[in-house]
Amino acid sequence: MEVSIAYSAKLLKEANNIVLTAHVHPDGDALGSLLALNAYLSAQGKQVRMLLDDEIPRTFKFLSDWEKVKKPDSSESQADLLVVLDSSDLERIGKVRDAVKAPILNLDHHISNLKFADYWYIDSQAAATGEIIVKLFKEVDAIITPSMATALFTAIATDCGFFRFANTSAETLIFASELVAAGAKPHIISEHLDTKPRAVIEVLPKVLETLEIVDCGQSGQIATLTLRQEILANLRDETEGFINYPRNIEGVEIAIMFKEADNNIRVSLRSRSADVSQIALAFGGGGHARAAGCTVTEPLNIAKRLIIEAAKKQLAKGFKIE
Amino acid sequence: MEVSIAYSAKLLKEANNIVLTAHVHPDGDALGSLLALNAYLSAQGKQVRMLLDDEIPRTFKFLSDWEKVKKPDSSESQADLLVVLDSSDLERIGKVRDAVKAPILNLDHHISNLKFADYWYIDSQAAATGEIIVKLFKEVDAIITPSMATALFTAIATDCGFFRFANTSAETLIFASELVAAGAKPHIISEHLDTKPRAVIEVLPKVLETLEIVDCGQSGQIATLTLRQEILANLRDETEGFINYPRNIEGVEIAIMFKEADNNIRVSLRSRSADVSQIALAFGGGGHARAAGCTVTEPLNIAKRLIIEAAKKQLAKGFKIE
Repeated sequence: MEVSIAYSAKLLKEANNIVLTAHVHPDGDALGSLLALNAYLSAQGKQVRMLLDDEIPRTFKFLSDWEKVKKPDSSESQADLLVVLDSSDLERIGKVRDAVKAPILNLDHHISNLKFADYWYIDSQAAATGEIIVKLFKEVDAIITPSMATALFTAIATDCGFFRFANTSAETLIFASELVAAGAKPHIISEHLDTKPRAVIEVLPKVLETLEIVDCGQSGQIATLTLRQEILANLRDETEGFINYPRNIEGVEIAIMFKEADNNIRVSLRSRSADVSQIALAFGGGGHARAAGCTVTEPLNIAKRLIIEAAKKQLAKGFKIE
Repeated sequence: MEVSIAYSAKLLKEANNIVLTAHVHPDGDALGSLLALNAYLSAQGKQVRMLLDDEIPRTFKFLSDWEKVKKPDSSESQADLLVVLDSSDLERIGKVRDAVKAPILNLDHHISNLKFADYWYIDSQAAATGEIIVKLFKEVDAIITPSMATALFTAIATDCGFFRFANTSAETLIFASELVAAGAKPHIISEHLDTKPRAVIEVLPKVLETLEIVDCGQSGQIATLTLRQEILANLRDETEGFINYPRNIEGVEIAIMFKEADNNIRVSLRSRSADVSQIALAFGGGGHARAAGCTVTEPLNIAKRLIIEAAKKQLAKGFKIE
């Protein structure tokens, strides 16, 4: 059933043995929210465990207590409450689903949330689940320590592109301000988040050499990057920021990145004003108007041709999002 | 004489014929502050002119009224007040200095401010002069229109690296929040600020191929980029973000960019924890602990050797800034 922040706080207060989890391929929001909530509940004397069915990415190992996050083991355990953070469906928590037997409270901000839990609080206006945790902490008058503030600032900042994305609201910035007042240091956090392995910087010239630009006249340009498997092998999957290079070129309306996998091509789409979610949907993918993705089970050259044709058609529609 | 925000407001209220200016090589803070203050004073029925002894960079031409900023002509004109924004000394306003005969009010946030004006309000805790303009607007209960909010958000965001630098305070984020509430759209602003000419992205592989890393063992690494004149010719001086590539490499403590000019080498220094202002000072330059610069009048290879040696010594000191 749908619950309020106050009711969520009540559920947490009544539970003693609590398991916290978040989605696989954890991002800053999943981990920051997890660690901050763990710190609060532990300080309340609760028996709390953090379970996550994945590795913690290198980038986030500056957050306090990350090493307390464990992978679920095969045996099933009991708990009073399983809190599922930043996950829109139960598949996203992997093996934690079967490892913990407990009623589920789901705190999330994804508009696509499937309302799978016993109790859910979903705020799709929130830029991050971290914002929901801030609201929860206000509800219970939690003392926010500098390390909790750092975790929550990381959660919020990573999910709104460091206050650059359209989901950055006036409230997002208020919460960020309160977290800085509580001890989060933006320059330290951003330094950790921006750090990349040397290999990524060294491979970047090869990535940028694949830049191709398709001029669609009045409608603007389509710019693409193509990452073949031999390049990807050097990148340890750290390809996230690459699509911003074509996206940020003057005159480019749609940016596309093609990543060659074993049997298919993963396609990322970004746009200035065309609705690229329509392109992704047509190929069985999804996303937002300005950022979407899909997977095409075709050889690279065919996948590129199909997607670029679809992008041209979308551009030709001339519809502009704000 | 030093004045308060309230007194600055009084000076503006009493003046009818006002000239606004800011520093040459204008950045987002200089222009955003200029345009926002112009909009407010114009709405008050004042006779206001914006004079700037430089071109407006392409990047900022999304801000309302940028085309109303004029270059000073050779004839001298009278005014009741000359407001000098974001400038720490009078040289920085170029020919506006001689073109306008009026008492000067200086609103600035540089700690190096020379207190050259008739009236000055300097807040070195402010991340941007834009913050001072926000305070001034609060003082006079100004109605902040969406275009004024956009100008001021741009002013603040550009001077604190979009809330990533150490000058990002809790107040910086509160002001940013208020500006979003007043109509500034972070995703539109960041899109404009991040847009680069195609040539810059196309030259980037050549820039990154100059990456060199000097391993200093326990003390960490020094990473350098070297921009020769033939590369710079293609870049139209848009080299600002480049130093972040070496700076963001895991294990790098000091990043250095060498730019070859006609008779000297311009050196930019960035650090994670070593005080690079000491290196810059030793070569007649200056700056902050984490970001400094200097000019070395030597051939490229000698300049590189000298600066890298100085960086090694600075690293060896092992002193860490927070």
